[in-house]
Amino acid sequence: MSLLKQINSPADMQRLSMDELQRLAQEVRERVIEVVVANGGHLASNLGVTELTIALHKVFDFSKDRLLWDVGHQCYVHKLLTGRNADFDTLRQAGGVSGFPSRGESPYDLFDVGHAGTAIATAVGMARGDQALGRDNRVVALVGDASIVNGVAFEGLNQAGTLRRQFLVVLNDNSMGIARTQGGFASHLARFRVSSLYEEVKDKVKRHLPNVPLVGKGMFDMLDHLKEGFKATVSPHQIFEQMGFLYVGPVDGHDLPHLIEMIDVLSDVDHPVLLHVHTEKGRGCDWATADPCTFHSPGKLKVEGDIVTVIKAGRKSWTTAFADATMALMNDNPVVHALTAAMPDGTGLAKVADAFPDRVWDCGIAESCTVDIAAGMCRAGLRPIAAIYSTFLQRAFDQVFQEVVLQELPVVFCIDRAGLVGGDGAVHHGYMDIAYLRTLQNIVLMAPADERDLNEAMRFALTLNTPSAIRYPRDNTPEPIGVETPFELGRARQLTDGPDATVFAYGGTVPYAIEAARILAQEDIYITVYDARFAKPVDGDAIRMAIECGAPLLTVEDHSIAGGFGSAVLEAANSAGLPTDGVIRLGLAENTFYKHGSRGGQLAEAGIDAAGIAQATRRELGPREASARSAAKLAR
Amino acid sequence: MSLLKQINSPADMQRLSMDELQRLAQEVRERVIEVVVANGGHLASNLGVTELTIALHKVFDFSKDRLLWDVGHQCYVHKLLTGRNADFDTLRQAGGVSGFPSRGESPYDLFDVGHAGTAIATAVGMARGDQALGRDNRVVALVGDASIVNGVAFEGLNQAGTLRRQFLVVLNDNSMGIARTQGGFASHLARFRVSSLYEEVKDKVKRHLPNVPLVGKGMFDMLDHLKEGFKATVSPHQIFEQMGFLYVGPVDGHDLPHLIEMIDVLSDVDHPVLLHVHTEKGRGCDWATADPCTFHSPGKLKVEGDIVTVIKAGRKSWTTAFADATMALMNDNPVVHALTAAMPDGTGLAKVADAFPDRVWDCGIAESCTVDIAAGMCRAGLRPIAAIYSTFLQRAFDQVFQEVVLQELPVVFCIDRAGLVGGDGAVHHGYMDIAYLRTLQNIVLMAPADERDLNEAMRFALTLNTPSAIRYPRDNTPEPIGVETPFELGRARQLTDGPDATVFAYGGTVPYAIEAARILAQEDIYITVYDARFAKPVDGDAIRMAIECGAPLLTVEDHSIAGGFGSAVLEAANSAGLPTDGVIRLGLAENTFYKHGSRGGQLAEAGIDAAGIAQATRRELGPREASARSAAKLAR
Repeated sequence: MSLLKQINSPADMQRLSMDELQRLAQEVRERVIEVVVANGGHLASNLGVTELTIALHKVFDFSKDRLLWDVGHQCYVHKLLTGRNADFDTLRQAGGVSGFPSRGESPYDLFDVGHAGTAIATAVGMARGDQALGRDNRVVALVGDASIVNGVAFEGLNQAGTLRRQFLVVLNDNSMGIARTQGGFASHLARFRVSSLYEEVKDKVKRHLPNVPLVGKGMFDMLDHLKEGFKATVSPHQIFEQMGFLYVGPVDGHDLPHLIEMIDVLSDVDHPVLLHVHTEKGRGCDWATADPCTFHSPGKLKVEGDIVTVIKAGRKSWTTAFADATMALMNDNPVVHALTAAMPDGTGLAKVADAFPDRVWDCGIAESCTVDIAAGMCRAGLRPIAAIYSTFLQRAFDQVFQEVVLQELPVVFCIDRAGLVGGDGAVHHGYMDIAYLRTLQNIVLMAPADERDLNEAMRFALTLNTPSAIRYPRDNTPEPIGVETPFELGRARQLTDGPDATVFAYGGTVPYAIEAARILAQEDIYITVYDARFAKPVDGDAIRMAIECGAPLLTVEDHSIAGGFGSAVLEAANSAGLPTDGVIRLGLAENTFYKHGSRGGQLAEAGIDAAGIAQATRRELGPREASARSAAKLAR
Repeated sequence: MSLLKQINSPADMQRLSMDELQRLAQEVRERVIEVVVANGGHLASNLGVTELTIALHKVFDFSKDRLLWDVGHQCYVHKLLTGRNADFDTLRQAGGVSGFPSRGESPYDLFDVGHAGTAIATAVGMARGDQALGRDNRVVALVGDASIVNGVAFEGLNQAGTLRRQFLVVLNDNSMGIARTQGGFASHLARFRVSSLYEEVKDKVKRHLPNVPLVGKGMFDMLDHLKEGFKATVSPHQIFEQMGFLYVGPVDGHDLPHLIEMIDVLSDVDHPVLLHVHTEKGRGCDWATADPCTFHSPGKLKVEGDIVTVIKAGRKSWTTAFADATMALMNDNPVVHALTAAMPDGTGLAKVADAFPDRVWDCGIAESCTVDIAAGMCRAGLRPIAAIYSTFLQRAFDQVFQEVVLQELPVVFCIDRAGLVGGDGAVHHGYMDIAYLRTLQNIVLMAPADERDLNEAMRFALTLNTPSAIRYPRDNTPEPIGVETPFELGRARQLTDGPDATVFAYGGTVPYAIEAARILAQEDIYITVYDARFAKPVDGDAIRMAIECGAPLLTVEDHSIAGGFGSAVLEAANSAGLPTDGVIRLGLAENTFYKHGSRGGQLAEAGIDAAGIAQATRRELGPREASARSAAKLAR
């Protein structure tokens, strides 16, 4: 009889024995694997936090206590325990369960999050708020070892140290470095002697010590791994104690009884506490532990006996195309370097680093710092390419402004995951980059329509003496489009010719515009399609021609219509004294949150796929034109 | 005979004796005081780094070594030593010497900077770049104690630890806490025993030790001050050693001979080194040391004997108006709290904190964290007001998105220094907030025209269940404008009536539009002026009326015309199917960096003062209209 099926809320867990809780952990793991194999999703990290999540829900009552997730993609176990097991088959699908915490799904989810490093700060805010409002509920932030090095996490720790109340940060350390047993807990304990308060806690904790196994250096193994030059003997407790925390750990995150006992002891300490928990990514699933990178966030999987592979379909991804283009540029030009903020796999730079290990820099989940380092490298004379997802580049907007644009440095930003991202949903859409970047002085904004043009755009960017940014979607590259045309600043590329309407499509939407032209041609509607190529500067001549010919001009972008490419076209037309009555802007609706689902479904919802573009064109041509057209057809 | 006048570059310093260098320090101080009294500027921090700057230029050769300034407002001494003494009287004036490092002024200035925390990261980038390009020049980053707690600084330190080369971070710790002598340098030294490399450095440093005075806990005194609950015994060296640095200090930043000796020893260590220097803000100027907050960045000063006062002119500042409004709201509503990121004086919240010490939160130079804490407080049920300068809110754009907008939390952002900021120049203009915020779903963007409307806008914001942001300039509030009109979502307020043109002015530009109307009336041109009040949502009805009446419609904003308020008006008109031929957008030119100078001069340069608005109106009405008008006049 399934235990998991009996858990409709954490309250139902309370009556389970320790043996049953351990069985529950096993069932939870099987459920996570089953659904991720079918739907894709974050696998290894969720398997790693199974016992930890159960322990937290066992000790705390998160119907009133606060649980803040950092990043949030490790929330699957939490979802299974808080009433979402029955619907979990719909994970990441349209209308289904989100892959991230979601306020809409459950009161147990306090923030919809997908960007790293923020949980401690929001938890500080909630603790202050609860305190100000006279509540005595407890606050827990669960943070991963990769997030804790983010600047916001550091700022949050610094603030948390000011609290005079219960505040538990659980550091989920799933470092993949081989754990080396260190010092012994007693030597850690010696360090706790900093105040009478600490003494009190120390005594409390001491009673539970003999049973706690020692699992290793944890987070700082990872730091060691990140920092080749790092030679100092590190003691993780010091850094946290200096921030005002009581540090406890590391403890084994898979020993459920001890974990529950330890969290129970720490749950009512009236002081900020950091509990360092060591977990194993992919725990309980041999193929996931064997390759936790591949199985961090795979697509749908094919399981054949012991062989598990990620199902890949279709053409080369934009990510791989970027990696190949970067490799070619590095081959040609020794001053080209590339940077990523902890996304070597996601951006494709892992592959580049294999070939050019000294010219690819992983700066950790620290987008602001990554952009500043790129700026410094550029100032020294290198030509850095910073590969950052659109949604994460938001975290470095001020650095793009101050350290790059204001210095007139020709850093090249390659913006992956621009536009709608499918299964990751609202926390990850890259729908604002055009708007926030195009206000910046003299930056050149480009988007390629196919792989050849990604290559060309990057080559062109490296000829510029101004900053530039190139965006491309989370998708496969399309078949090659049109004939090869050299990049020229602010010059669009005409792809089809037709008198009835002009479509300016930007980047990833170009193939849909071409397809729309094909659909419309079958209805005797012939449109001109431009691959816009540039959002800053836009092609003023092409816009003038399109407007002056009198036919409707549609702009299409995989981006918010507020402030985006279409807005830039409006501005250019307006500044040139051209009328804009015939301009129709297609893009993401200004005030809509697009939920998770397939990217195709999201494009359709936004009306920027082929059918949407065709329909908008028809609508604009209107019934009068349509009837004239059909009269013309009859007359033939 | 002045020594300073003989220094045209740091090379000229090299032949000076130690006595002469100390005389030079004295002359530098006098020069800084003289110019800041006349022009306003950053006083206390520059007096504090006098010896430190001289020592750095004495030891390093920054014609090839790299000196990176954090924040940069403490660069005056550096400017005086690098050929800018003769022009220094023009400090912060139009066409004169900038108050921040400026690449345009000198090859000794590598980055134009004014935002905190970035120097270490850019220095890491330059070190990597120099190394990749085979150069052996040295790299120095000078960071203040307030900046080092910023997340980007932390991220930069974490990266710097990876360097296997010379890299010196000088921590200029001008904490105003009373310095308590601690432990002794020997006890610090004991901590250096972490590797053979450290041993080597330790021996080197040891030879210079007996002469080094001990000045106290420095930075962590400040942390103590910030964090009331902080009880741990802190050892600043540990935190930096854990990041991979050799920590040396604290040393006395005003003992020039020892400072030079110490920096000389550390200048060629092939390992990241952090030198902790204790300095006194305002050093050498009694009235500045007595009140370093007031004399951090004063306006022009009046010196009468021993009495020094800041010259204040005109009406109440927007900052004070905000403080008064916040105080009134807090009186009325116990759940209103306010937050600042290390700008209690600059935002006006210091005054509010005097009245409501438990409801004003200073989160340090950590804008991202400040916004996240506000989000957490809001989620818990408070109504937080986050007061952040426009240019610094850029640093929290992603947090405004993820933690506030995506969660649909009604946090109120009060954006001071929106628009052109005068003497601080290009690093501090708030020219992008409308563009980067209006892409966000359902956020309400407002700007008041006068103090009464700031009160009303804030009251209105607290009635909303969506996020909102209110912007106002670095200026004094104008005389009350028009009659009191309640705030209604997306509704502009009509101020004058005239058939010849309509002006939609946003926020701080409203008084100029009124003045323009007055000027034009004298020429028999009568215009309608709207106080737009909202940039999101804009007033569609008023826009429709203005466009349909056929007269030109001018939008005016103290913000970039790329993506700003005027762009929102264009979009609204376009979406409503209205022609935009008659729309003229006035604002900051899209690709221009507005240099430092008076705010009035900058407004004129951008063409958004009264004369500019009047002129744009005339230009739009054109010669034909003008001649018709003058014919009509003659006929009278």
